[in-house]
Amino acid sequence: MRYVLCDMRYPQSIQNLIDEFSQLPTVGPKTAERYVFYLLKQNPEKLQQFAQAIAELKEKITICQSCLAVADTNPCPICADGKRDKKIICVVAKTRDLITIEDTKQYNGLYFILGGLINALADSGPDNLNVKKLVEKIKNNGVEEIILALNPTVEGETTAMYLTKLLKPLNVKITRLAKGLPMGADLEYADEITLSNALKYRTDL
Amino acid sequence: MRYVLCDMRYPQSIQNLIDEFSQLPTVGPKTAERYVFYLLKQNPEKLQQFAQAIAELKEKITICQSCLAVADTNPCPICADGKRDKKIICVVAKTRDLITIEDTKQYNGLYFILGGLINALADSGPDNLNVKKLVEKIKNNGVEEIILALNPTVEGETTAMYLTKLLKPLNVKITRLAKGLPMGADLEYADEITLSNALKYRTDL
Repeated sequence: MRYVLCDMRYPQSIQNLIDEFSQLPTVGPKTAERYVFYLLKQNPEKLQQFAQAIAELKEKITICQSCLAVADTNPCPICADGKRDKKIICVVAKTRDLITIEDTKQYNGLYFILGGLINALADSGPDNLNVKKLVEKIKNNGVEEIILALNPTVEGETTAMYLTKLLKPLNVKITRLAKGLPMGADLEYADEITLSNALKYRTDL
Repeated sequence: MRYVLCDMRYPQSIQNLIDEFSQLPTVGPKTAERYVFYLLKQNPEKLQQFAQAIAELKEKITICQSCLAVADTNPCPICADGKRDKKIICVVAKTRDLITIEDTKQYNGLYFILGGLINALADSGPDNLNVKKLVEKIKNNGVEEIILALNPTVEGETTAMYLTKLLKPLNVKITRLAKGLPMGADLEYADEITLSNALKYRTDL
């Protein structure tokens, strides 16, 4: 449901832009107003540039047919990079997760975008995921390791279990991201599951 | 300072729009990413409409020369409205405050936009406010009451004190918004100043 200010007194062009911003996730009318009044203080060139960035957003975007990531080339720069280790594939739910992992600069393999997670409550099953393409990719490219980089949530765990079962017969090593305490955590405030995992997966020093 | 993702891997058009959103107040790169990926799912017509709303924002905007509010006409619809009580002026810091008061539908007078508040720490004194124009307006229009609708903060109180001192010689009634408990408040968690005000300005039943 859209929240509508009860009595519109703003000039039409301001109200239009408030309405546009209000549809963005987590943005309510008050936040939208704040954005608009910030933009009102910018010069017209700045606004044109912003408008152009929105108008052109999708024009130059494609989907990499190798890893299914949102990209500006097909194949994407990562899949096209000869220096990448093509024997490891990191499976993530969405393109944004790929970027987050890339930012660590600790991974040199390829990626594969699953396109979501299994969510029983939202009626989103394995059929909605790019599973078939993943199986094909593993079979045809001599992949040796699959890293499941999925959220440590009910949805992520369910999806990881499903994929493990599905991919095991392909004779490929399957790993997942480590579970334990995040950096900067306080034992006193750690939740039970995190602490249990930290104990269970403790490492030698 | 602008926060920049350490390693840009997004397609250029996505990165451009993330950068544009990131300059909005309270929006960091993660929030900006979320907005952009939401927009990626919209159809091109929707994006064009959003882009147009930004591009046209300032084209149709002016400042009402009577109350100094941001408006699409000069004078603005409120100042031009013959049914409004021209003997009362509600002084607010910015146009957004005007809209908030209008939304209550409890006020039928005119407004005046001060253009900010006195902030000693930010080196923003009375010279930055539209004080001269306010004095003129009061002198020339037979105004009988000035309502100071300023934030109950140090800046708002300082500004109210300054204006009271300045406007008293003009022989005009000066009032301010009531201080007390907000609706839904819990006495147990009310701060001392709010509670002191609620006691001090208690009303007969």
